[in-house]
Amino acid sequence: MKLVVTGTIGIDTVHTPTAKREGVSGGSAAYFAAAASKLCPVRLVAVVGGDWPAEHRSILKEFSGVCLSGLESRGNSRTFAWGGKYFEDVNRRETLFTEVGVLQEEPPRVPVEYADSELVFLGNTHPAVQLGFIDQFPNRKLVVADTMDLWIRTAMPELSALLRRVDGLIVNDSEACELTGVRNAVSAGQKILQMGPKFVVVKKGEHGAILFHPEGNAVIPAYPVEASKVVDPTGAGDSFAGGFMGYLTRENRNDFKALHSAMAYGTILASFALESFGLDRMRTLTLEEVQQRLRQFQQIARVG
Amino acid sequence: MKLVVTGTIGIDTVHTPTAKREGVSGGSAAYFAAAASKLCPVRLVAVVGGDWPAEHRSILKEFSGVCLSGLESRGNSRTFAWGGKYFEDVNRRETLFTEVGVLQEEPPRVPVEYADSELVFLGNTHPAVQLGFIDQFPNRKLVVADTMDLWIRTAMPELSALLRRVDGLIVNDSEACELTGVRNAVSAGQKILQMGPKFVVVKKGEHGAILFHPEGNAVIPAYPVEASKVVDPTGAGDSFAGGFMGYLTRENRNDFKALHSAMAYGTILASFALESFGLDRMRTLTLEEVQQRLRQFQQIARVG
Repeated sequence: MKLVVTGTIGIDTVHTPTAKREGVSGGSAAYFAAAASKLCPVRLVAVVGGDWPAEHRSILKEFSGVCLSGLESRGNSRTFAWGGKYFEDVNRRETLFTEVGVLQEEPPRVPVEYADSELVFLGNTHPAVQLGFIDQFPNRKLVVADTMDLWIRTAMPELSALLRRVDGLIVNDSEACELTGVRNAVSAGQKILQMGPKFVVVKKGEHGAILFHPEGNAVIPAYPVEASKVVDPTGAGDSFAGGFMGYLTRENRNDFKALHSAMAYGTILASFALESFGLDRMRTLTLEEVQQRLRQFQQIARVG
Repeated sequence: MKLVVTGTIGIDTVHTPTAKREGVSGGSAAYFAAAASKLCPVRLVAVVGGDWPAEHRSILKEFSGVCLSGLESRGNSRTFAWGGKYFEDVNRRETLFTEVGVLQEEPPRVPVEYADSELVFLGNTHPAVQLGFIDQFPNRKLVVADTMDLWIRTAMPELSALLRRVDGLIVNDSEACELTGVRNAVSAGQKILQMGPKFVVVKKGEHGAILFHPEGNAVIPAYPVEASKVVDPTGAGDSFAGGFMGYLTRENRNDFKALHSAMAYGTILASFALESFGLDRMRTLTLEEVQQRLRQFQQIARVG
């Protein structure tokens, strides 16, 4: 199976309770691809500006499983830039600034050689852009999207259309609640199933995730991480999605049981992502380390 | 093994987003005992006033596994009364009023025939009162306590003394954070281990629970419950404790693996408790229903 991700590449500024970093290599597609590449090859579709640091390109090139043919560079444009601040409560985040730059132009082109992609992850961008990507993958077998509160508030018609065309949605609990007007995450997830997707994963950050599917629900706690180990939560959600889709790609399955198992891989990849700023931890992470932590997690999250 | 619980019997007033109930049979010891009694016999130590409704006594008597020899009635006193309001976010609760009544008098007497109790659960009351109970159980093998934010703020010396004398603490995540001054629940739980208890269970309501133990941690998600099924969250935490201690009593074990497994029983008992006001759901609940939901939970919370 062939996996492709569309989304953003960004230059991040991150403030945590103990540190501040500028010029961090970020973006939803970058985090997703880095995580997924631990499990399977992954193709990336994104666009950057002329200001994108050569060092960031070098970092992405280190991930041998990530194909960068779909990474478009526009010399006269500026790369998407995002600044965020985290608090001691890691589930709380404040956006300091968003400079969309090149994202307000035409979406990146999908290379001809990506046309046979079968698993498609539409990372968070405007739902109209996400919709535009779908038909460029005629061999698609599973299309999964992410979204965010901004589009729920400003682009609901396009988001509704997107939800009717995707197989799965991976979304934060606060966004699931905002999308449905329901406070209970379980009820919100069920309600999203009626909006189109065949399955929904509601991510709850440090509290784990819930899968909603016509065959039933599945729940998973987060891998427990002490405060001292949480360096930067940016990209943990995208890394979850990367681990989730990477597992489905590697196993060549997308039935309920496979989706359930995929949540464990998402959880483990997310737990590594937050151990460093940007992609630093992902650069050295091995499949053996992923599998070792998964085995440990299976022990500590055993039920009964 | 013989299990005893000390704590409150109360008359509750409960406001939920959709209903309001007065004169509900409540209190930490009542909820604990009702839940534990599904798994093993349990002895109750509590005190009520002359205003305690005969109907509430009848309800408690229905639980054949609950021994009421330690339920003291003081005709000239008033029963503890509590009023609380819940919001659509079930993890949020506001106390409307607290009339301590008989709780400000001498604690209830422990019947002589309870002296051979081996597992002791000290339900939430003033930590000095909890401390006073410990030595009345000379055959104690495992002493576990609950506490609340009020005692963290007003009785920290007594609470510190209590923590040095108990084997385990079962506490809400917000209280664990307040007790330690740490926002991360994982770090807070670890820090409480250094305050005395051999193990700590941090309850996160709809987000599950974490066990902290010198041999390692264990995590469990909550049993997923839709908003329409959440009738009244009052007593869910006490029911968790009842299921947890009931399992240890029935299995006659308190090693790390047993404590881990006990969290699943706590989770299931709590999930039933919130399906009704007061003890209504517990009155009809059978062990077969508990085991059936546990098996279902093991399926939906499987990792990997």
